[in-house]
Amino acid sequence: MTHVHVVGLGMGPQHLTVEGAAALRAADYVLAARKGDVDELLEVRRAVCADHGVTLVEVADPERDRDQAADYPAAVRDWHAARVAAYAAELGARGGTAAFLVWGDPSLYDSTLRVLEQVADRVPLTWDVVPGISAPQVLAARHRVVLHEVGQPVHLTTARRLPEALACGQRNVLVMLGSEGSLGALEALADWSIWWGANLGAAGERLVAGRVSEVLGEVRTARAAARAAAGWVMDAYLLRAPSAGEAVA
Amino acid sequence: MTHVHVVGLGMGPQHLTVEGAAALRAADYVLAARKGDVDELLEVRRAVCADHGVTLVEVADPERDRDQAADYPAAVRDWHAARVAAYAAELGARGGTAAFLVWGDPSLYDSTLRVLEQVADRVPLTWDVVPGISAPQVLAARHRVVLHEVGQPVHLTTARRLPEALACGQRNVLVMLGSEGSLGALEALADWSIWWGANLGAAGERLVAGRVSEVLGEVRTARAAARAAAGWVMDAYLLRAPSAGEAVA
Repeated sequence: MTHVHVVGLGMGPQHLTVEGAAALRAADYVLAARKGDVDELLEVRRAVCADHGVTLVEVADPERDRDQAADYPAAVRDWHAARVAAYAAELGARGGTAAFLVWGDPSLYDSTLRVLEQVADRVPLTWDVVPGISAPQVLAARHRVVLHEVGQPVHLTTARRLPEALACGQRNVLVMLGSEGSLGALEALADWSIWWGANLGAAGERLVAGRVSEVLGEVRTARAAARAAAGWVMDAYLLRAPSAGEAVA
Repeated sequence: MTHVHVVGLGMGPQHLTVEGAAALRAADYVLAARKGDVDELLEVRRAVCADHGVTLVEVADPERDRDQAADYPAAVRDWHAARVAAYAAELGARGGTAAFLVWGDPSLYDSTLRVLEQVADRVPLTWDVVPGISAPQVLAARHRVVLHEVGQPVHLTTARRLPEALACGQRNVLVMLGSEGSLGALEALADWSIWWGANLGAAGERLVAGRVSEVLGEVRTARAAARAAAGWVMDAYLLRAPSAGEAVA
């Protein structure tokens, strides 16, 4: 029986927890996907493994069809199926105790747990999960804000689904999986506040905060600069409607 | 100028991050509230401080008026004002670099950042925030679930506001700040799934998962048992409506 520790790394090695480090040291090896020829996040994982005396085993990551935008769940399913086959082959052949180093937290917009459930149909497998710091938390920490007003909700969703969150009346929304194009939806929220961040926790981190109408241009510029500097960009942002008091004033 | 590191401890010392530990070691002292004569969470903080060679300074915590249920924001404001005065006095007198060890994450249902903003009106103060593992993440890790379905939102709210989340059509809701009484709202969600946990990360942790109609009694029993064992209980739970497929089947 192969066992897997699914370890949330947080948004960088500075976020590794005491129990995350212990899980790494208890593992025989770490499986990590290689995406393309240059993979900065793989190199971060490699350094973390070296620090904790555990071997990193690379698995070539299948290509994800990002043009299949009209059927997002299907695109994700296909990509998962290819990952399942690749991980099942490695875990079946190696056995023992493996670990995965998940960027952020395994419970939020990450596929590792769903992939493992399918790997377990092919290879005898048990697993546990160690939580990690997620992008919304780093965003809030950098801007020194709470994610909601006192006693109020926060709605976490994807940039793709932001319009439906707004349509159903959400007034405090944390958005992940953004894209350049999806920022257009913010133009309708001129008097809302935004706390935005890109490549949070990494060297090329960018932050912008203010009233949407005043800072949306700055957000677009900072997003492009983050991508230019790092070769990749992931952003997250908190949107909050003006309070009743502000709207009256 | 006094500086404060607001450090998310997570749900116990096992969740302290690399950067959280560094912030503690860089502090001259840690300020911590004492709640009543026996305060288990204070003792955990004391042990963490001892491990990192930093002095813990106790501040008597003002009583919060929990009977003021009809005006929750006002009750919270009064409690904050008393905390502000107590912390301003200590920080003003001691100066240097202080740290707070926040249970969970400072960005989620925690008052520390709001208190500090008010302390800064009385004492020259700067501060930064180090994120910590929050209850929803530990809940998800224990149950080995993702907090949402693929590409779908998750709505974080309080037990008090669960009814309005349901009324506006939310079908995947993470509930915090629960009470025994608030579990009654779940009786209307018989065919929903629940992943529940109490005292997450602590020795008396309890977990229950299943269809609401089948496990709600077990949740009530486990909640009472957690309180009896630890003298306190904090719970969190994920609620998910049956998917269209399940509802048809």
